[in-house]
Amino acid sequence: MKPRLVLSVLLLTAGFAAFSQQQQSRTAKEDHSAVDDKGLIKIAIMYPFAEGKTFNMAYYETKHMPMVAGLLGSSLVKYSIEKGLASGIPNQPMPYLAIGTFYVKSLAAYQAAIGPHREAIRADLANYTNVAPVILVSQVVR
Amino acid sequence: MKPRLVLSVLLLTAGFAAFSQQQQSRTAKEDHSAVDDKGLIKIAIMYPFAEGKTFNMAYYETKHMPMVAGLLGSSLVKYSIEKGLASGIPNQPMPYLAIGTFYVKSLAAYQAAIGPHREAIRADLANYTNVAPVILVSQVVR
Repeated sequence: MKPRLVLSVLLLTAGFAAFSQQQQSRTAKEDHSAVDDKGLIKIAIMYPFAEGKTFNMAYYETKHMPMVAGLLGSSLVKYSIEKGLASGIPNQPMPYLAIGTFYVKSLAAYQAAIGPHREAIRADLANYTNVAPVILVSQVVR
Repeated sequence: MKPRLVLSVLLLTAGFAAFSQQQQSRTAKEDHSAVDDKGLIKIAIMYPFAEGKTFNMAYYETKHMPMVAGLLGSSLVKYSIEKGLASGIPNQPMPYLAIGTFYVKSLAAYQAAIGPHREAIRADLANYTNVAPVILVSQVVR
């Protein structure tokens, strides 16, 4: 091949690579919107606030939630942890001290993964809280 | 410039563009993980389930939440809607019929945007539910 032909081919290749990356970049950005959680099942473990109730966020974040996430394995899409700050309604108490949420594609797969370890998970609660959690299973609409 | 020099410069530029897109792509992909919500403030409007309580999800999804999101404008990072399915604890009632959540960077900016419209937002509630919501302000830890 002549040098100029080689350079033209290289240029075309580089141009295509740039275009390809741009497409990937766009797809990844669209993934960021909340819309892409649509259809996922959420299991939210909510710890109600009340006088005398305690919650060790450091233990929850570094030990408990990673342990449960590990048990869920490939059935887990992602998980989140949030710390309660206040009620959004003036003069009302903060509803929850903390919430941990698992996002899964299938509730059945979640239950199958958790089932054999339910007692171990429950026993670990005493290591970070004296609150009996409320658990909501919901589906992401948007 | 000689033709070969021009081509070399073009090649270098194309190569840099490809590299640049790759970097953007990587950043966007990292944004997708739950970890990247870290630090955001969540305002979760939670509608408790009880006998006789109703919730029109279609109205909530297509009218109410887009209206509030529009009022929040640039102070809103994203919002989500979820529909309650069940309690995660056997023999307990489902805690919430539905939850709508706004993710913002600043609670003060959220309050400033919502403040002037609080009555209009409250008045719209009767169009989709007879439930008095509970509101949790929290911070994403992970």
